[in-house]
Amino acid sequence: MTLKYELNPIGRVDKKEGAPVFLVIEPQYWDAALRIELFSHLHIIWWADGFDNPKGRSQLKDVPPVEGAEMSGVFASRSPARPNILCLSIVKLEGVDSESNRLIVDQISADDETPILDIKPYIPSSDRVDNAKVPEWFRNLVKRYTE
Amino acid sequence: MTLKYELNPIGRVDKKEGAPVFLVIEPQYWDAALRIELFSHLHIIWWADGFDNPKGRSQLKDVPPVEGAEMSGVFASRSPARPNILCLSIVKLEGVDSESNRLIVDQISADDETPILDIKPYIPSSDRVDNAKVPEWFRNLVKRYTE
Repeated sequence: MTLKYELNPIGRVDKKEGAPVFLVIEPQYWDAALRIELFSHLHIIWWADGFDNPKGRSQLKDVPPVEGAEMSGVFASRSPARPNILCLSIVKLEGVDSESNRLIVDQISADDETPILDIKPYIPSSDRVDNAKVPEWFRNLVKRYTE
Repeated sequence: MTLKYELNPIGRVDKKEGAPVFLVIEPQYWDAALRIELFSHLHIIWWADGFDNPKGRSQLKDVPPVEGAEMSGVFASRSPARPNILCLSIVKLEGVDSESNRLIVDQISADDETPILDIKPYIPSSDRVDNAKVPEWFRNLVKRYTE
């Protein structure tokens, strides 16, 4: 496969000790946030830049960092080390700061200054799965947005 | 911003009339699917190659194609036309065909031959949101995986 696709960051994470978590959008992309305040939750696709090296991008298997986990393919784990180092986080949108082109969110597992590639609204009709099956080692994680 | 990130397809959609929907994984990435059968649902990140042109990639706003929708930023819609033409679909994993490096899934909104960039397991503890808020025009869509 010699196909290559090019992506540009549309923003970055601003996550400083003691401050809210911001997703800072590049000014030229701010119009793409129109009416985003009508949604409570978002999917954030970010670039795991710490793994943007031949080792990180050739990793096909790992052991997820939870108790009892077994060696798994990266398509069966959420490891940031993977062929295309895309990460996906679901976050709660807590505010929109139009003056500084920023979204305020509750949390994100990405580090400060992580490049953001895309933002999509969370739409329950197709994004929410009741009764999804996962292996034992992912069953007792802390629930973030469910009862 | 002059940063650019390169991605390579890890597979493609095989969706032919009257046949199951397959996600065909490139042989060199098949090890990344180890233990994927332990999950019932997956996130698929795919490349909206039909919009890989200056017009598609400069679109910042559109009207979502549902009744009553208002003009929205693409970060507030699921339009494939957007700065980085990434799309995200949640699918049900129905089978794994190791001999042909294929996953069998229930559906995907991508066309036949669409490039796939990443696959991640759906983990309810962080991916399922109960009571997410959306604008009126996304409230009456057909529910796929919820009651």
